[in-house]
This record gives sequence, structure tokens and C-alpha cells, in this order.
Amino acid sequence: MHTLHVELGERSYPIYIGRDLLTDSELLCQHLPGSQLVIVSNETIAPLYLDRLRAALGPRELVTEVILADGEQYKTMATLNEILDRVMSDRHNRSTTLLALGGGVVGDITGFAAACYQRGVNYVQVPTTLLSQVDSSVGGKTAVNHPQGKNMIGAFHQPRAVFIDINTLQSLPAREFAAGLAEVIKYGLICDAPFYRWLQAHMPKLLAREEAALAEAIERSCACKAEVVAADEREGGLRAILNLGHTFGHAIETAQGYGSWLHGEAVATGMLLAMEMSARRGWIAREEVADFRQLLQTVQLPVAPPADMTADQFLDLMGRDKKVLDGTLRLILLRDIGEAAIVADASEAELTTLLEDALQTA
Amino acid sequence: MHTLHVELGERSYPIYIGRDLLTDSELLCQHLPGSQLVIVSNETIAPLYLDRLRAALGPRELVTEVILADGEQYKTMATLNEILDRVMSDRHNRSTTLLALGGGVVGDITGFAAACYQRGVNYVQVPTTLLSQVDSSVGGKTAVNHPQGKNMIGAFHQPRAVFIDINTLQSLPAREFAAGLAEVIKYGLICDAPFYRWLQAHMPKLLAREEAALAEAIERSCACKAEVVAADEREGGLRAILNLGHTFGHAIETAQGYGSWLHGEAVATGMLLAMEMSARRGWIAREEVADFRQLLQTVQLPVAPPADMTADQFLDLMGRDKKVLDGTLRLILLRDIGEAAIVADASEAELTTLLEDALQTA
Repeated sequence: MHTLHVELGERSYPIYIGRDLLTDSELLCQHLPGSQLVIVSNETIAPLYLDRLRAALGPRELVTEVILADGEQYKTMATLNEILDRVMSDRHNRSTTLLALGGGVVGDITGFAAACYQRGVNYVQVPTTLLSQVDSSVGGKTAVNHPQGKNMIGAFHQPRAVFIDINTLQSLPAREFAAGLAEVIKYGLICDAPFYRWLQAHMPKLLAREEAALAEAIERSCACKAEVVAADEREGGLRAILNLGHTFGHAIETAQGYGSWLHGEAVATGMLLAMEMSARRGWIAREEVADFRQLLQTVQLPVAPPADMTADQFLDLMGRDKKVLDGTLRLILLRDIGEAAIVADASEAELTTLLEDALQTA
Repeated sequence: MHTLHVELGERSYPIYIGRDLLTDSELLCQHLPGSQLVIVSNETIAPLYLDRLRAALGPRELVTEVILADGEQYKTMATLNEILDRVMSDRHNRSTTLLALGGGVVGDITGFAAACYQRGVNYVQVPTTLLSQVDSSVGGKTAVNHPQGKNMIGAFHQPRAVFIDINTLQSLPAREFAAGLAEVIKYGLICDAPFYRWLQAHMPKLLAREEAALAEAIERSCACKAEVVAADEREGGLRAILNLGHTFGHAIETAQGYGSWLHGEAVATGMLLAMEMSARRGWIAREEVADFRQLLQTVQLPVAPPADMTADQFLDLMGRDKKVLDGTLRLILLRDIGEAAIVADASEAELTTLLEDALQTA
């Protein structure tokens, strides 16, 4: 088992990465000392892992289980209310802990419920998808979607601990696994060039879900994210680099309706757009863009935006993105592999040409 | 004009108390430098003050006005969604500021909307009721109600500034003014005995809404609250004393349905119950309880719980209160006038007798 620490002063917390953490009673109970517990999961994950986790957590005075429908389309205020209604009617008090067992949707919504319930109670994460393990379980961003924009309603609320059980990846559908790899690759691109080269070399082992390779990829991803988050907890500046590909990606997700494209798929295509834009500015070599496209294809991630979208639609949706400050669109590009840059000087013409060219390949 | 500072490190903010602050363009604009603004008010307050405030704020790139229905029964997730929908569809970005113009309901819900929108944007308060001026505008507690409990869903989110225009109190209905005085009196009881004696002496001037007396009462109340909040921002301990009378009061509000009893009325009756309980424990003199009851009657505040409630119903609702930690009911009592105590040893028998006796007078 490996342990990472996210350093955030009094809100610091550990991330454990290893095998069979889901049933590691001692480790779990060490971070869940209270007598009240709310386990939030979904109808796909609960049948696979809930019983084992429950057994490992031992007897408690009050345990509420909330099993949500599965999918990004349920990451809504309505589902948040469903959780809060259950927590309220079972009369959990301020010392309760919420536990998220599932992917990013379960984690984000459970974290937000914990942030809001009685103005903030503890929560821990047991992420079961690659995406949530390397992304949403680190950094304390919690949210639900709004019909007009992704993650628009939420809070910064740090978990008390994150337990990444790599065994859970064996049951992950191939498409979701690939979507998670998109975020793994992102960390290499924005802050760790040697890791990116390692990923290019080890992708077959990762796709075969070899444990050692998975543990290495997850640990390096979480370490990268933890470092960025520790430097900028509330996204004043640096943290924005974690959004490489996300402004384009959110536009795709919003246009297609949540749940149609997976988040990681949209981000993959968004990263390719950001790399293409970086190359057109002369910051990275054309060859890197081609290699990256090849890497995405190896992972079976999409390399073109949805054919039914237009450049105008992209620009419209991107204008609504959270990264817009005082009317200026901020984008994350690459100065080099492993070196992200936040740019605020993208013109409408530059973006329109970029998007129209990309849409022609769709 | 008087200025108080709530000392919370990087979240510190000023409270301005004085005449005509609502139209003090220079002061307002100094704290609202951005180009985007969301003004939240209600249908009672907006017709009285919104135009003048708008004029004082000067031209802005984007101003959204959200006018809510008036009343505690609208302090709900549904109303929160109504605000967020407007802010989203008008495409406010992260640098927008929400401004709450109204009483505690408008302030609490606007603050919570600001806490949630894009995981936190700035907000300022222009409280127009005595209650919101001395209570909900100080301390960063934001919330909406849940059908099963008051203020159960919310966040700690500090405003950037609070503008208390005492002229707005001239238009306040007598019943709401009296309810606000209940919280003013509370501050004397929990942390400032000389202020409590001053209130006993100056109540006729306050009831006549004399400006000098109002400014003095508001400033001392806010100073007391600011001091307590600065010492304990997230209610780890001391801050709980601000809840004198509130555990009993919340039970009344929940049982009667929000909006039936005003918050201050429920708190007044709750404080009388807490004083009676303190007297029975021999902590304060019987005479003080009688004097306090007299003071409430002078202000025309209720001195008995609703006749249709039972002791059992009280205990049931109090068990759901946020101040319950690990199954123990915590109550705020008085060791002396000006000296609050947090007690965790109240027995069911003690409470039942207290409540049954009080209900007999109802």
C-alpha cells in the first residue's frame, strides 16, 4: 500500500492506494471513528462492493445507505435532495460521516451533500473508477450539474481520507477505463513529461490492467494533482492547469447532454484540440500532436468532436464556462510536454478556425 | 456612521452602521468594484428600496434582479434553484457579486447561493430588518430550511461587507421589529450584562425607534456577535452560545410551520424557557426570570409556547436539532446575566417537567 498526503494545513488528508483496501477493516475504521455513517453508492457499484465494505466497517449505531441511479445525468440538485432527505429523516447529527462508494458522480454529489448538510460534515471517498481515483477524489471539488452548465453548483470541501482500492478497476467497463486513462495522460501532459513518456511506453500494460502498472499510474497522477491542489486549493491560479482540455470538453458534454459522452472522452478530445492549438502557436512540435492522437487511438478514445456540433455552438458554450473571468476566456495550452500555460489571449478567429478544422475531421 | 470589523483573517470584513447607507454611492461602490452584480430581494422590500440602491450602484455591465416571494416558507431549495437558474441563464461569471437586499431569509439564501455558485462567489449584505441587521448578516452562516429542520442545508460563507442602513427600520412592521429586539436582548443575556441593563432602561426609546438608541443597540449587538464569531468561526464551541433559546425556538418554528411564528418570537419564548431552566438549577434569581418575562411583554413578544404543542413533540423536534452531537442534547443556559453556559446534562425528566409547566401557562 502506498500513502500520499494532500497538504492543506488543517484540511490535510491521506490518499491510500493499494489492493483490497475495501475490506481493510483496521485502515477504514481508523478514519471512520464515529457511530453514524451514510454510505452513498449507485445501483451498479453497490451490488459489487457494498456488502464487503459494510462488513469491514463493523457495527455502527446508525448506518444509512443511499443507492443512486447510475450516470452523469443524475448528478443534479434533485439527487442531492434525495440524499439530504434520507440523511435528515434518519436524523444524522453533525458528527456523522458520509462515505462515497463509486465513481466521480457519486463522489462529487456525496461531497457536496457533506458540504451542505448542517453546513458541513465529514466525508471519505472510496472511488471505484479510474477517473474518480485520479481526479475527482483528490482536491475537494464537489458539485452537481446545472442544466445549463457542468459542475456549476458546488463547494470546496476536502474529504478526511481517500481509499483507492485498485482491485475495483478489474470490474470497470472498458469504455470507462479508457475515459479514466484520459485524465491519467493529462497529468503527464501538464506537469510530468517523464510520466507522459512512461505512459506512452506502458500503455499496453495499463490496458491489460496489470496491477503494478495501475498502481504506478494512479500514484503519479494523484501526486501530480495533490501537488497542484496544495499550491492552490481554491483555484486562484495554478490549479486551473488541471483543466487542460476541459473547456472544450465541457462544451461537448453540455451540447450532447450529460452521460452521452463520458467526461474523460470529452476531455481527451478537448486535450487534442488544446494540443493542436498549442502546435499552431508554435509551442509544441506537430509530431507530438500526431503521437498524442495515436495514443488516444490506442486507448480507443475519440479524436474528433461530435459531427453534429458547430464552431459557433462551441464558442457559445465555452463562454459560459467557469474559467471565464470578467468576459475573458481562459484556456489551458501546452508550452511543452509537461508544461501547461494559462492563456487569455485566444481570439474568436483563432478558435473558430481551430474548431472548424477539427469538425471537418469528425 | 460606525464601522465594526469582523476579524476572520483573510475572510475579515467590515460592518457599516448608519443613516442613508443605501444611497451612499461611494461607500457601496468601494466594496462592489466588479462589473457584474446579482441583486436578490423580495416583493415587500424591492418596491421600497431597490430603485434607490440601483441608482447608487451606478451603471454596470450586467445586473440581474431576482425578486423572491416574502416569507420564511420560501427559504427552500426550490427558491435557491430559482436564484441559481437566473444567475446561470444571465451567464454571470466567477467574478460576479451577489447582493442581498432584505431580511434574514433573503440574506441567508443569497449567501448560500453565493457559496454554491461556481463553488463560491462574493456577496454583500444590505439587511433591512432589525433581526437580520443584528443576527444573520454577521458571521457567514448561510442556509435554506429543510421540511424536517430549519437551516439544515447551508454553508459557512462570509460576506465581503455588510451595510446596515438604520433608516430602513422605519418601514418595518411592528411585529417584525419586536422579533428583532428578541435577538438584541439575547446579546445582553449571553455576553454583556451592562448592555442588558441598558436595554431594560431604554426599551421605550427603542420601541419608539429613536435613531440614536437604535444605532447603539445594533452596534453593541453586532460587536457581541462579531466577537463570538471571530473566536469560533465554524461553531466548534463558543459560538454555540449565540443559540440561546434557539433549540426550543426551532422546535416551535418547525412544529408550527415556517412563517407562522417569527424566528425572533420563537427565540424569545425559547430564551424564557432557558432562563426558567437556569433558575430551576439555581443559577439565576427567580426575579430575573420575572423581569425578563416583563421585558418580553413590554416588547409584545410571546411568553409561552404554542398551546397546541406537547412536551413530547418538543423533545422529538429538539432531538433533531443541529446542536445534538453524538446523541447528546446541548442547551445554552445562563450561569448569570451576561454569562452563557453550554450544558450537555439536561435529562429528559428535567426537560419534560419544564416544558409541561410552560405549556400549562399557554
